[in-house]
Amino acid sequence: MWQPKPLPSEVVLIGQALGRVLAEDVLSAVDVPGFDRAAMDGFAVKAENLYTADEQHPVVLKVVGEAEAGDIRSHRILNGESVEIATGAPIPTGANAVVMVEFTKRVEHRVSIFKPVTIGENVTGAGSDIMCGELILRKSQVITPRETGLLAAAGVAEIPVYRKPRVAIFSSGNELINAGEQLKFAKLFDINGPTLIAAITECGGEPTFSGILPDDYSTIKTRLGSAMSDADVVITSGSTSSGPGDLIYRAVEELGEPGILVHGLNLKPGKPVVVALANGKPIFGLPGYPTSALMIFHVLVAPLIRNLAQTVEGKTRKIQAISPLKFFKARGRRELLPVQLISQPDGQFAAYPMQSGSGAVSSFSLADGFADLPDTQEFVDEGEEMEIELFGQNLIPPSLVAIGSHCVGLDIAFRLLRRRDPHFSGRTINVGSVGGFHAIRRGEADLAGVHLLDMNGEYNIPFIPIYELQKSAVLIRGYDREQGLIVPPGNPKNIKSFADLLQNGTIFINRNRGSGTRLLIDKYLLELAGHVNQKPAELEKRIEGFAHEAKSHSAVAAAIRNGRADVGFGIRSVAAIEGLDFIKTDDEKYDFLVAKSRLSKDSVQRFIELLRSDEFAKSLRENAPGLSTTEKSGTILYPSTEESVVKATASSTSNTT
Amino acid sequence: MWQPKPLPSEVVLIGQALGRVLAEDVLSAVDVPGFDRAAMDGFAVKAENLYTADEQHPVVLKVVGEAEAGDIRSHRILNGESVEIATGAPIPTGANAVVMVEFTKRVEHRVSIFKPVTIGENVTGAGSDIMCGELILRKSQVITPRETGLLAAAGVAEIPVYRKPRVAIFSSGNELINAGEQLKFAKLFDINGPTLIAAITECGGEPTFSGILPDDYSTIKTRLGSAMSDADVVITSGSTSSGPGDLIYRAVEELGEPGILVHGLNLKPGKPVVVALANGKPIFGLPGYPTSALMIFHVLVAPLIRNLAQTVEGKTRKIQAISPLKFFKARGRRELLPVQLISQPDGQFAAYPMQSGSGAVSSFSLADGFADLPDTQEFVDEGEEMEIELFGQNLIPPSLVAIGSHCVGLDIAFRLLRRRDPHFSGRTINVGSVGGFHAIRRGEADLAGVHLLDMNGEYNIPFIPIYELQKSAVLIRGYDREQGLIVPPGNPKNIKSFADLLQNGTIFINRNRGSGTRLLIDKYLLELAGHVNQKPAELEKRIEGFAHEAKSHSAVAAAIRNGRADVGFGIRSVAAIEGLDFIKTDDEKYDFLVAKSRLSKDSVQRFIELLRSDEFAKSLRENAPGLSTTEKSGTILYPSTEESVVKATASSTSNTT
Repeated sequence: MWQPKPLPSEVVLIGQALGRVLAEDVLSAVDVPGFDRAAMDGFAVKAENLYTADEQHPVVLKVVGEAEAGDIRSHRILNGESVEIATGAPIPTGANAVVMVEFTKRVEHRVSIFKPVTIGENVTGAGSDIMCGELILRKSQVITPRETGLLAAAGVAEIPVYRKPRVAIFSSGNELINAGEQLKFAKLFDINGPTLIAAITECGGEPTFSGILPDDYSTIKTRLGSAMSDADVVITSGSTSSGPGDLIYRAVEELGEPGILVHGLNLKPGKPVVVALANGKPIFGLPGYPTSALMIFHVLVAPLIRNLAQTVEGKTRKIQAISPLKFFKARGRRELLPVQLISQPDGQFAAYPMQSGSGAVSSFSLADGFADLPDTQEFVDEGEEMEIELFGQNLIPPSLVAIGSHCVGLDIAFRLLRRRDPHFSGRTINVGSVGGFHAIRRGEADLAGVHLLDMNGEYNIPFIPIYELQKSAVLIRGYDREQGLIVPPGNPKNIKSFADLLQNGTIFINRNRGSGTRLLIDKYLLELAGHVNQKPAELEKRIEGFAHEAKSHSAVAAAIRNGRADVGFGIRSVAAIEGLDFIKTDDEKYDFLVAKSRLSKDSVQRFIELLRSDEFAKSLRENAPGLSTTEKSGTILYPSTEESVVKATASSTSNTT
Repeated sequence: MWQPKPLPSEVVLIGQALGRVLAEDVLSAVDVPGFDRAAMDGFAVKAENLYTADEQHPVVLKVVGEAEAGDIRSHRILNGESVEIATGAPIPTGANAVVMVEFTKRVEHRVSIFKPVTIGENVTGAGSDIMCGELILRKSQVITPRETGLLAAAGVAEIPVYRKPRVAIFSSGNELINAGEQLKFAKLFDINGPTLIAAITECGGEPTFSGILPDDYSTIKTRLGSAMSDADVVITSGSTSSGPGDLIYRAVEELGEPGILVHGLNLKPGKPVVVALANGKPIFGLPGYPTSALMIFHVLVAPLIRNLAQTVEGKTRKIQAISPLKFFKARGRRELLPVQLISQPDGQFAAYPMQSGSGAVSSFSLADGFADLPDTQEFVDEGEEMEIELFGQNLIPPSLVAIGSHCVGLDIAFRLLRRRDPHFSGRTINVGSVGGFHAIRRGEADLAGVHLLDMNGEYNIPFIPIYELQKSAVLIRGYDREQGLIVPPGNPKNIKSFADLLQNGTIFINRNRGSGTRLLIDKYLLELAGHVNQKPAELEKRIEGFAHEAKSHSAVAAAIRNGRADVGFGIRSVAAIEGLDFIKTDDEKYDFLVAKSRLSKDSVQRFIELLRSDEFAKSLRENAPGLSTTEKSGTILYPSTEESVVKATASSTSNTT
């Protein structure tokens, strides 16, 4: 079996050695202390002068000097003499013991001593703490602050440590460009390069980003070959499956002996993985999808880098989490399952499997880590404990997760909660009100901001039975907010109502299906269709940009501010923040759906308490025009029994005092 | 109450942002994807051309081009036309859907399509993953590899992060010099400066070492004042108690309002602690002893630095440990108790209180962390669980602790154990054989290397009853080793036996009391005293250097190699390693005492198994002249019942296969 060769060592100053690993045993360069020193305040004497001293018959010595710690003068005493000495000061030449000051009485240049001493008493001998040449640190020791101090004390200014493993990273794909470059048509920013640079740094490696490989065989081969001359490990990501993938495969195969060891693993998502060895250097081809690339990196590459870096211990963090549902895994294959972590009322984490259907980047941004499920396992049971490897050593799973409709009021609430408690960390995921109902039903969120209007003009409550949440959720009153049309400053297209969207040359920006605002838009579309006597589907085609769906109020405002659209629906506060004009059409109820099982969670109780607070009301007034709390904010709207209201009030109080 | 002001932010490139904390919300700078793109391989079409297509009646379109991912050409189709398109490629102008390749058949420049599509089918809309202007990361987010990738994807090249808190560090004391400087008479290397630099770095601060303060009032005041103009926090250590301590106290008091807040805490070791605030900046005066300084730093200063750095989570590591004995703590005072951690057979750690009596540096090097015991607590019970804060985030408590006599054979054994298992970490503490017996009795060590010779010429076993270890310890056969006199190469003083130490001008280096070698030296001294008819105590005085006690064989050899001594007692292998000459006087038994309660510990079993191995025997032959295993190595010498031998053999086997 191939074994990585230990890396050569390099010499670093001890001030730069934190976290590095000693490549050799280290011996003390000096004696500590470097001289015989006083262990007590008192008088340095010749012990043989004091054999007869006692309480009744003190011996009187002449005091010929004073020695302090750090005193570089060399004192000397003869028979009948002494030096007054402070703890830490060097013992004078001729002296061989120190009498503690308690057993002496000095008057001017004479000292009376009432107790004999033995040779060496109260003297700390040179080298008694550490002796020159003594082994002080052993090869393979990781340098922590303690070792830094110890090396300093032993006069060691620089130490040999293992060189960090050098890792060259390539991304691959004609559609990619480097982060920070100008984005061009048909191009996407590379995600894997920057992610892997950071992940390799956390493992104790020294990453170099070697650029984006084009889909061209000879360029790939040349650039991989040249990276290998300097790097200890080479990583590529993307383009390892069919089509252009063959290029990487062929280039790697021809870089050196023995070539490809593995192409495709019995692992999900391992199909496109390539592992090769060329002239003693390992090469890894990772998948292109960021979450897959990072998981395969953690499983295959990180252990090798840590092994080379000799940091055997704990740079990646693992935590235990409970599966909130039963699900079947890839049969007969090991599966790396990306999960989102949500803290439960009991303080444990639930690990929700990520839905791979969602956008590549947004699902990457939600994945906190992954479970590594063995091939022999067929399913994960509800309540089963899983070990989750986190995607970063400083990754902190959020204390409160809101999935649903986007609102600046919710952003303000999260900011206030963090100001109250710096340990609070919130995560909001904008999937619209309908998505919020689903997230609560599936248990993926602590709360969902919702504003769904039914045909009778009632908000939110009528939808609870539709999503079968009567027994499992409560609805908390949030706040009122003004909805309307957002247009550029000065309203250049002179838009007054929804009907004006039919104006020629007016570009609309729509909202995502499932959002409360989209329901409102659909209501206006229906009304207008009746008015102009046209089918709604045909009317849709007449509104330019109707197919373009933004996921949040902010995204609508951003599109209008950037000139990519002339009008959209959204709330007044977002328009105000972006400096845009606003034509009010509706007042709506923005409320919070909470799973009953989460109601006792500390962060949920803090949130409810905040909704009731003057602090939140004031902050909305100042920062979110059009948003306002009412006297019912923070109370339970559904179910409407007195009992449940009282209960929530009581538990909230006990949690926030 | 004083609250630290948040630090200003600074802008860093995302590649340099790992572990930093966002100072503002971050919005996406681009749409992801930035263009409408194909979600599948197939043909880009106008959906309205295909309404009639089915299996029997395919619609035939002209193929006017091929689009690949990253293709920057802008394709365009008219009615009746299509473009063959790869996943990720931009949708051509005029097209509004993609037909999957499975439902098509291309022949040269024509494609037959067997299925209709709806508008938007298999098209990923621009901004559907992340929309330009969308909130992607929230203020206070710690940047992990995941966030780095997300920022890159969103076209964000640099971000505002909180500036790291700047911490100025002073050490104080006339006897100190800086690490790396030339050591002078009466001086000691500063330990606290380098230790605090490393500890502050681990907390997320930016340390600056501002030098050593002399015991001079006006210099202290000037230098502290000038450091305060740039730093957010100032730390001094040492000289805060009586005498020179008044200088720091007075200088700090006059630096600005409100001045000293605390001088001396009701905390052990908190007497010399000073906390002050001058013009809004905190100043801490820590004790001089390294262990005390580091504990007070962890308790008082580190939380403030982490607060300023906004890294609210987990940079210092805490672990649970069991108290191995009952002891009383400082009454009515909070006590920070430095401990050494030793792993137990059950995998838990035992936390042994450090004996403050031992040398300042060597006890500092053994302390793994500390327990923080509240003032209301009177004692810690045997078996009580304590929370231990570790002295470094990478600090790894050792898996096997040997306290006792020093031997290169033991060093070799530890090296081999680590080669077998890179997670193995050993600690050896050299206190001599007698110290080893005590350490086993107190439970502080897993094993003790011992070589004590009694009057009858028997090794080790006779001492077990003397230290009352008959029931609680076993003695494992180690190996034989040659003892003798070590002299410089060529033996310039022509030393043949112990009697030659009386030669004029010959400097001896002794061993520490309690070491087996010292017992041997004392035996020779007694013999020689009889021979020359002199009292041993008087003979001692005739041997120059007899009072100078080295703590290990290596330290003896180092002293001889450096010319600080002409002769010492030690083992052949150490002489050989140092290139010194050796005059053999004795063969001795170097064995291992093990507490019965530790015998089942995995690392102890591995050690015993190693003693029996050919690998160890071979490594001794090659690397340690004069050391040799026997057929009994690794067997139990005491107690000598058949039963115990069999038991140990069985458990060792089960642990090492």
